[in-house]
Amino acid sequence: MAELTGPPGARTVLQQCLQARLQVKPPDQGSQAQWVEIQRGLIIYVCFFKGATEEIIPKMVHTLLNVKLNETEGGKYVSILNLPGDILIIPQATLGGKLKGRSMQYHSNIEKDIGLDLYTQFVAQCERELAANTKCFEAGVVLRHGTYGNRQVLKVDTNGPFTHMIEF
Amino acid sequence: MAELTGPPGARTVLQQCLQARLQVKPPDQGSQAQWVEIQRGLIIYVCFFKGATEEIIPKMVHTLLNVKLNETEGGKYVSILNLPGDILIIPQATLGGKLKGRSMQYHSNIEKDIGLDLYTQFVAQCERELAANTKCFEAGVVLRHGTYGNRQVLKVDTNGPFTHMIEF
Repeated sequence: MAELTGPPGARTVLQQCLQARLQVKPPDQGSQAQWVEIQRGLIIYVCFFKGATEEIIPKMVHTLLNVKLNETEGGKYVSILNLPGDILIIPQATLGGKLKGRSMQYHSNIEKDIGLDLYTQFVAQCERELAANTKCFEAGVVLRHGTYGNRQVLKVDTNGPFTHMIEF
Repeated sequence: MAELTGPPGARTVLQQCLQARLQVKPPDQGSQAQWVEIQRGLIIYVCFFKGATEEIIPKMVHTLLNVKLNETEGGKYVSILNLPGDILIIPQATLGGKLKGRSMQYHSNIEKDIGLDLYTQFVAQCERELAANTKCFEAGVVLRHGTYGNRQVLKVDTNGPFTHMIEF
C-alpha cells in the first residue's frame, strides 16, 4: 500500500522540552555568541522540500499549534496554545536528507532563498497566532527561533522528548 | 510520484550530541532515579511499525553505524564507527504517530512485546558491532540505551543536532 501520493512539501519533527537554549549568532571576533531560550514548551524542527509554496504555511501553523502533543502537569495532552507553553522553531534542512549508499543527499530540499522566505513566513504566522491567543498572551509565553542557514547549536532539557514527525 | 511502495518497518531519527543524559529508571520510594550518559556521539531514536520482523535489524544496524553523519573536529563527516563516538539508543514509540484531526494515533505501531524484542535485538547487535570495531574499542566509546516502555527523560547538549530521519 503506497502511503504517499506525492512527495511532501515540508517535514517537521516535534519535541517537548522543559527548557531549551539555541544559539542564534555564533561568537565572532570581539563579540560573544547570542542565544535565545524557552522554558516548558514545544521545539519545532522544520525543513521545506522542493516545490513547497507559501500555501502550505497556514495549514502547518494551524496543525502544529493545535495538535494535542503537550503534556500538562496532570498528565493530559493538550495543544501548545492550550498548555500554554513556549515555542522554539529550528530550521533543520538536514531533515530533508535521503540515504544514498553511506551518505545523505539533499537533492529534494528547497532552494535556499525560497526556503528562507517560507521559514520567515512560518515563524511570522506562528507569532501572530500566539499573539492573538488570549491564554498565551496572559501567560506570557514566548516564541523564539533559530537563524536560517546557521549552525543550530542547541541545549535541551526534557521530561521525555515525546518525539513526533508530521509532514505537510 | 509515490515514494514508498509500502509502509516502513522502522523509523529512526538521528541527532548529534556533545553530551546526553537519559533516565533509565525513574525515582522510586527510597531509591533515586538512575541515569546513563554518553559524551560526543550519536543519539538514535527508534520506533518499530506493525509487521516489522528481526530481518530488518542487521540492515538498520549496518546503515546507522556506517552512515557518514558525524562531524569530526575538522568539519568532515564520517560514520559513528569512524569518529569514533558514543551511541545513545532511545525507544521512541511516538515516532510512529499519525495525525488524525487534532490528535496523534499510533495504530501502525508494533505490538508492545514484539517491539521490545526487536528493540532488544537492535541494541544487542549495535553493541556487538561496536565491540568488534578496533577503533571504537581502543577509543573506549560506549553504547547506552533507554528502557523500553519507560518515559525517556533526556538532557542533550549539542553543537548542532543535525537531525536526520531514516526509515527501514
